[in-house]
Amino acid sequence: MKAVVYTEKGTVEVLDCPKPMVKEHTDAVVRMLHASICGTDLHILKGDVPTVKPGLIMGHEGVGVIEALGSAVQGFQVGDRVIIACMTSCGSCRFCQRSIPSHCQSGGWTLGHRVDGTQAEFVRVPHATLSLHHLDSSVDTRAAVTLSDALPTGFECGVRNAGIGPTSSVVIIGAGPVGIAALLTTCLKRPALIVVVDLDDARLETARTMGAHHTVNSAAPDVIQQLLNLTGNNGFDSVVEAVGIPATFEMCQELVAVGGQIANMGVHGVKVDLHMERLWDRNICIHMSMCNATSTPYLQNLVKNGELDIGSLVTHHFPVDQAIAAYDTFKLASKHRALKVAIDF
Amino acid sequence: MKAVVYTEKGTVEVLDCPKPMVKEHTDAVVRMLHASICGTDLHILKGDVPTVKPGLIMGHEGVGVIEALGSAVQGFQVGDRVIIACMTSCGSCRFCQRSIPSHCQSGGWTLGHRVDGTQAEFVRVPHATLSLHHLDSSVDTRAAVTLSDALPTGFECGVRNAGIGPTSSVVIIGAGPVGIAALLTTCLKRPALIVVVDLDDARLETARTMGAHHTVNSAAPDVIQQLLNLTGNNGFDSVVEAVGIPATFEMCQELVAVGGQIANMGVHGVKVDLHMERLWDRNICIHMSMCNATSTPYLQNLVKNGELDIGSLVTHHFPVDQAIAAYDTFKLASKHRALKVAIDF
Repeated sequence: MKAVVYTEKGTVEVLDCPKPMVKEHTDAVVRMLHASICGTDLHILKGDVPTVKPGLIMGHEGVGVIEALGSAVQGFQVGDRVIIACMTSCGSCRFCQRSIPSHCQSGGWTLGHRVDGTQAEFVRVPHATLSLHHLDSSVDTRAAVTLSDALPTGFECGVRNAGIGPTSSVVIIGAGPVGIAALLTTCLKRPALIVVVDLDDARLETARTMGAHHTVNSAAPDVIQQLLNLTGNNGFDSVVEAVGIPATFEMCQELVAVGGQIANMGVHGVKVDLHMERLWDRNICIHMSMCNATSTPYLQNLVKNGELDIGSLVTHHFPVDQAIAAYDTFKLASKHRALKVAIDF
Repeated sequence: MKAVVYTEKGTVEVLDCPKPMVKEHTDAVVRMLHASICGTDLHILKGDVPTVKPGLIMGHEGVGVIEALGSAVQGFQVGDRVIIACMTSCGSCRFCQRSIPSHCQSGGWTLGHRVDGTQAEFVRVPHATLSLHHLDSSVDTRAAVTLSDALPTGFECGVRNAGIGPTSSVVIIGAGPVGIAALLTTCLKRPALIVVVDLDDARLETARTMGAHHTVNSAAPDVIQQLLNLTGNNGFDSVVEAVGIPATFEMCQELVAVGGQIANMGVHGVKVDLHMERLWDRNICIHMSMCNATSTPYLQNLVKNGELDIGSLVTHHFPVDQAIAAYDTFKLASKHRALKVAIDF
């Protein structure tokens, strides 16, 4: 079968690989329809994820059709169309029991990390009972790849952790795929104010079409004051960090209101300054978490009911033979006005 | 009347001052019985709180008897014994409406900060309706000073913000008055494991008598590993910071378990490092807040019912004439085995 393989630092290649088989009673093998590329995949390419070894098939997002099932898998049949959760979950370890499957002791982020991933014609999914979700027939298959990771990340790590509700003033810093996923799921809560910040005017334009009330380009020298002005200088109740660098984390600390919440979604490579000397008394909270992907069924239901429009989140599709072009497009996402980029099988 | 006055950086003096009067309809004047010294008072002495001007009467903690009442005060009579909340609260501003009276727009930390405080024979309490609590006749007046600030801080900023419950593993870093207040109120939740850390063996001994299952001296070179060993290397679900320096905040980050919560109670003077590069994916939360003192009635009720023993928290009492000695004792609290130090009137 064709698969997108990490061959060495900086390089993925489309190679012929053996088709995976059911190995454990709890496995499913899924014939992939679409697999999307995540920012984390680019981190792997850069060599930032040393647990990933050359030869691994990439990817932890995607939708497909069940090809084979282990005897212990419950709730699924061969031929079922499924969304693959970005986190595999045993359901019984102490983290799964506490609803933190992202830290499942025999799962978590396994696909495209510790075992072969979804960017292939077939993928073996461990712990299939809890790591797959039925794909509703009314949901567009191509858009549904965003229900694996991007949308649940935006919702769980952004909207929920930032405590966004109807009276909230919200700022989302970063309008990449996960920032936009946070924006789309923020809109579900109908908050009083939604502002999106990015360096790229094209992405800010996209954010406005997707529900942002205001956007501010973070290159502006007075960006903090511009943003605070939108809140009557009170600061934002909910600050969502969707970049992952010290400068944007700093911005969060300058923007958060007394009593507010900062929700980090960015993947950070270095430590940041935390200004406890001026924040200790502000009754705030800083959340940081990996996506558990437990909200996928809820979000799919909203898509099905027409309450959540995810049609614009996947901007580019490439057949598997052109997977290198897919990666190149995603690497230069701003230039190509790309959000999620998918590979089709 | 006699009062403890901040006269210049480094100095408080006992001076004769005019007795306060009701100025606003919402004021009460309270004849003080006991007023305790807070760590924040020492910060004022060091010159760390520039909003405090020489000539101010110190103190935001204490109990007394209502001497006079403004016409708009509800729920109190002259002669009532009261606990004075460390935060005064108007009840109607946007922060009070969101249950954050510590940031009340015409109140918050006013006593001993922006208006004359409790370390005097009489004090004028603004917004008396919500800033006083009836002192139950069964509660020891001398111990009740801890219900102004120390105990609600331990409970609200420590126990509640750290999400402490029956299954929690808890570590409290710092066994000063607020750390011990957090310990006493942690015990109410009957968590699985309570560990207290301090540099002072005498304070650790006190912590053990007050409910800590284990104590560890933070001078030990392997302190982190000793602590983690107590959790089977899983880390602590609830980490309470009761010191306020970068080294202890660093310790919190090394000790927190996946899915855990850090609750900061310390007053910080400088920024700290936040290790987002290893914490971003750990599904944790960091809380920082000032005490709102809204839990005082709840805590007093527990004292009244015999569920919370606060008798050992005030270790030293001095008559007002010896208030300088009271401050000197509190400054060298370790040497004197002091927790809370009170001034009697």
